[in-house]
Amino acid sequence: MKLATLNVGRDGELIIVSRDLTRVVSATGIAATLQQAIEDWDALAPRLEERYAALNEGRAEGAFELDMAALHSPLPRTYDWADGSAYLNHVQLVRQARNAEMPETFWTDPLMYQGGGDRFLAPSADIEAISEEHGIDFEGEIAVITDDVPMAVTPEQAAGHIKLIMLVNDVSLRGLIPGELAKGFGFFQAKPASSFSPICVTPDELGDAWKDGRVHLPLTVHLNGDKFGEPEAGPDMIFGFPELVAHAARTRYLGAGAVIGSGTVSNPDADGGPGKPVADGGVGYSCLAEVRMVETILHGSARTPFMRFGDRVRIEMFDRDGKSIFGAIDQRVVQYQAK
Amino acid sequence: MKLATLNVGRDGELIIVSRDLTRVVSATGIAATLQQAIEDWDALAPRLEERYAALNEGRAEGAFELDMAALHSPLPRTYDWADGSAYLNHVQLVRQARNAEMPETFWTDPLMYQGGGDRFLAPSADIEAISEEHGIDFEGEIAVITDDVPMAVTPEQAAGHIKLIMLVNDVSLRGLIPGELAKGFGFFQAKPASSFSPICVTPDELGDAWKDGRVHLPLTVHLNGDKFGEPEAGPDMIFGFPELVAHAARTRYLGAGAVIGSGTVSNPDADGGPGKPVADGGVGYSCLAEVRMVETILHGSARTPFMRFGDRVRIEMFDRDGKSIFGAIDQRVVQYQAK
Repeated sequence: MKLATLNVGRDGELIIVSRDLTRVVSATGIAATLQQAIEDWDALAPRLEERYAALNEGRAEGAFELDMAALHSPLPRTYDWADGSAYLNHVQLVRQARNAEMPETFWTDPLMYQGGGDRFLAPSADIEAISEEHGIDFEGEIAVITDDVPMAVTPEQAAGHIKLIMLVNDVSLRGLIPGELAKGFGFFQAKPASSFSPICVTPDELGDAWKDGRVHLPLTVHLNGDKFGEPEAGPDMIFGFPELVAHAARTRYLGAGAVIGSGTVSNPDADGGPGKPVADGGVGYSCLAEVRMVETILHGSARTPFMRFGDRVRIEMFDRDGKSIFGAIDQRVVQYQAK
Repeated sequence: MKLATLNVGRDGELIIVSRDLTRVVSATGIAATLQQAIEDWDALAPRLEERYAALNEGRAEGAFELDMAALHSPLPRTYDWADGSAYLNHVQLVRQARNAEMPETFWTDPLMYQGGGDRFLAPSADIEAISEEHGIDFEGEIAVITDDVPMAVTPEQAAGHIKLIMLVNDVSLRGLIPGELAKGFGFFQAKPASSFSPICVTPDELGDAWKDGRVHLPLTVHLNGDKFGEPEAGPDMIFGFPELVAHAARTRYLGAGAVIGSGTVSNPDADGGPGKPVADGGVGYSCLAEVRMVETILHGSARTPFMRFGDRVRIEMFDRDGKSIFGAIDQRVVQYQAK
């Protein structure tokens, strides 16, 4: 099943989207919002699935054409947004670029930070930034939405609480990160509002590509219209989503609608070294920081700039037949203007 | 005006509480929940104030007796829970206990971490913990609730977005903190669900005690029935709430219902040294970690244990006439049992 949220009001309005992303039908009478649906998922999902089947078969009453521009992130806001960093290749590069070793425990104990979930951006909304000096970056990631997760669940139990999958642009202000991390309390101002793919899908929509709690497909990232990366999201994700959800729930209950992110998708090169740019025959990257780290390791300093006002990033995922699964996050960076 | 939330459903039910905390009346017909009220505060607050006036004058229809045990935290969940650490005396003690200097920038750039807001505890709910080895601690704090806050507001502008004030127990698992902070991403498992005072109040309820964006009253903390601390919340709060809200909003918009915390209330001793225990004529502390740091500084090691299963903490604030303003957070620690 594919779901989306019309960009109206604080929580939007839940709609059901056809598998081929052409037609939609309102979820009215079942759930007004995705938050409402996820809070009572076991009872409501079968009814949504029924309407989804009718939509795909062309027999849903009141169906209309999908307008991607009318969509918000599936959850325009959430009570819990926690982002992992499960592609340790990315973490290793960060460390390598500053000549630091990655602790051995990183292979067994997931990295995760708590994000702010109060005002997500729409997938096509401008990213407002105060200054280019803040080092504006995108991070292409995958995220899951859970229902209520009991405290201290095992990864096996956590797997059953993963109800929906989507893509993320975890907007990051790289220039603010060193200062914030030095303070010891983690990210805050360096992680402004994230955006999510216009469509979220149930795991079964991914078929064989959903395996071991990972999405085994490449994530496609374009920067100003040029392909910037197409890293594989499956093999190098050291912790699967069930492990990430269990990590988040170790000492507390997660409320329905919790969004757990994978961290920046990242692959080492086939030869085990740092990944190569697309232009050099590599799979590229899903954030600018990574190409800059690779440049620093190879050439002593970064050459690729961070995003400038007017720059545009597009994040999408295609199935093995080349069809877009989630629709695209497609955002331009603009200078913040006081209102 | 004093508001509270009946503990029913995920968001509870908004009620209005009399100034003397004896009587309540439903907010029905104005707002079903506090979240709904804060989202449309300018329109709804005057109507709530009107009913509050009627309640205090004994002429509110349908008023009934206040039952503290029936209350949840004012916001049982929120989209944004960000906690500062504005009492730098506490931060200095942490550093001193491990022979580290506090950076000069800490005096000008607030510390703040992003918490999880999906499942707050009720003020009288048990604190479930997996193990005493996790170093179970309370943190007595003050917090404010804002309406929608634009990005990049000044502290002067932020002050106008502070609509409600309450107390917090920022439950902390001290044993998990060093490991998490060493990973560099900040707190996560070390900060399980917080709880809040049963009543939240508009700033005018504090009269002269609300000044410079700070609450100038002592915070009273009892541990297992014994007074553990009565630190003054006003003078040693280095950053007032307007500064903390502006810090939180520097690179992003805050959604209505954002909760911004002060950090552990903490005073140095009158002689400028580390604060003394109540038994030694000092004002005591609002968390166990602090007395342990003072013990470490004075005696080389901590003597006071963290909380054990069965231990109880009570956090309250009284006005200058000795009347409870917010009601009490009163919680027992219990061992988590898998359900």
